[in-house]
Amino acid sequence: MLLGVYFIPQKTVNPPKKEIYKMNRATLHQHIKNRCNYLCVGLDTDITKIPMHLRQQPDAIVAFNKAIIDATKDYCVSYKINTAFYEALGVKGWEAMEETVHYIPDTHFKIADAKRGDIGNTSTQYARAFFEQMPFDAITVAPYMGEDSVRPFLEYKDKWTIVLGLTSNPGAYDFELESSGNELLYEKVIRKVASWGTPDNLMFVIGATRAEQFTSIRAIAPSHFFLVPGVGAQGGDLNEISSKAMISDVGLLVNASRAVIYASDKEDFAEKAGVAAREYQQEMAMRIRN
Amino acid sequence: MLLGVYFIPQKTVNPPKKEIYKMNRATLHQHIKNRCNYLCVGLDTDITKIPMHLRQQPDAIVAFNKAIIDATKDYCVSYKINTAFYEALGVKGWEAMEETVHYIPDTHFKIADAKRGDIGNTSTQYARAFFEQMPFDAITVAPYMGEDSVRPFLEYKDKWTIVLGLTSNPGAYDFELESSGNELLYEKVIRKVASWGTPDNLMFVIGATRAEQFTSIRAIAPSHFFLVPGVGAQGGDLNEISSKAMISDVGLLVNASRAVIYASDKEDFAEKAGVAAREYQQEMAMRIRN
Repeated sequence: MLLGVYFIPQKTVNPPKKEIYKMNRATLHQHIKNRCNYLCVGLDTDITKIPMHLRQQPDAIVAFNKAIIDATKDYCVSYKINTAFYEALGVKGWEAMEETVHYIPDTHFKIADAKRGDIGNTSTQYARAFFEQMPFDAITVAPYMGEDSVRPFLEYKDKWTIVLGLTSNPGAYDFELESSGNELLYEKVIRKVASWGTPDNLMFVIGATRAEQFTSIRAIAPSHFFLVPGVGAQGGDLNEISSKAMISDVGLLVNASRAVIYASDKEDFAEKAGVAAREYQQEMAMRIRN
Repeated sequence: MLLGVYFIPQKTVNPPKKEIYKMNRATLHQHIKNRCNYLCVGLDTDITKIPMHLRQQPDAIVAFNKAIIDATKDYCVSYKINTAFYEALGVKGWEAMEETVHYIPDTHFKIADAKRGDIGNTSTQYARAFFEQMPFDAITVAPYMGEDSVRPFLEYKDKWTIVLGLTSNPGAYDFELESSGNELLYEKVIRKVASWGTPDNLMFVIGATRAEQFTSIRAIAPSHFFLVPGVGAQGGDLNEISSKAMISDVGLLVNASRAVIYASDKEDFAEKAGVAAREYQQEMAMRIRN
């Protein structure tokens, strides 16, 4: 019976205001324990894929996102907003992104999946956009341009920089999995970037489709959280990833986007998204070490 | 006297509507010849750096940009909007970016300096944002995630993808200038990415501070245009770059941002920006092979 109780996540309740924007590692872990999962729901909201009955209304994207958040928030610990889908709608899309991130409860780790990165004075502006203009806890960053392109994000206390390590897409073979000296490029990236921050302000993106590499990657970055996209539509294996890369405070945020938010394209889309998220939550609950 | 005539750029006149958004290579070269320069003016417009008398007005960024464009358009062939500076201002910044790109004459090559790049379905959304929602001719793209992250941008006819090759910042030493097999990473990037597109839809970012590498880079990509930031505030040498990398239809767009747009922080800011742009134009005119 204890096991059954363990599987039931605590209901999401907003914290007192003073805690807002303080999603440090201990807090994130507390949310993972409370809700018995390490699921991130990806809000890759595409106007051409949301239910027909929503598409006509002017705030369709926001209405869809709010319904998805309401239905899934008890079964996940994080939301990831894929900025591209909002930018594709112009100013209205940027407004929808702002409204969405403000709607996400402060009990959830808010990721801007933006893949930014530029020379220092420009990365500083991107950091302002996502950490000051909007209340994201984290942003994904591309490593190609090196340390000064990453550092401005790391300078924010209680904010997180999530640097691309090994991505889930076929293009990972073009450069990431090519040799660089006596290691592979993505290994060099993880090793070097790890020295610029700490496990308290830095995570890595490791694609779920790279399950065979998770043991060796965990050896390079034994204490960092990994943001793991590619479960669901892209075919990654949650079990294998979890068994290879979970650490004492879990150290994983596994993202599902399309498999959750497009679980149904009918009026029951939110309910079905909740069901899909709950299935992930249940699977994850079994894997969290207490 | 003929030499003197050659140095005087043609006045910028908007083309008939049917030519809009068709900035192919021949057209770009025609503009370079007409205006006797290959200058790109970078609109890295920072609200904390524009003249005090403008800062109070609600559309300060747009007012600043319009004045800069009016004052410089006869002395440049391209404008580069650094998206970070607009995103840092939230929705109002995105509106300012849209208004600015629409204000740039269609005789000028419009670059979104956005450093985007993600898995294919996400890069497709970024391409929509900058090529459909906004009338940019080109976007800068980070190569780390490989071919499927770049290809969606290349699929637009008469649009350009400008992939990071060797950047101007200190962080270039972290990965770009590290060995990758029997070449350096940036060399591998340029060589591989060149095979994904053509010199008619693909350019590379090569930082002006890397002048010593321009000869070998030109050998790897003999026909591609290079977008060269880093002249001016970052200290790159226009002469050396031009002598090493110019090809028959010039093949260079040299960017100056701060050195032009912040030439003065007083009421004469636009006039002084025009003077600074004209100085670059004069230097460039002497270097263009006819």
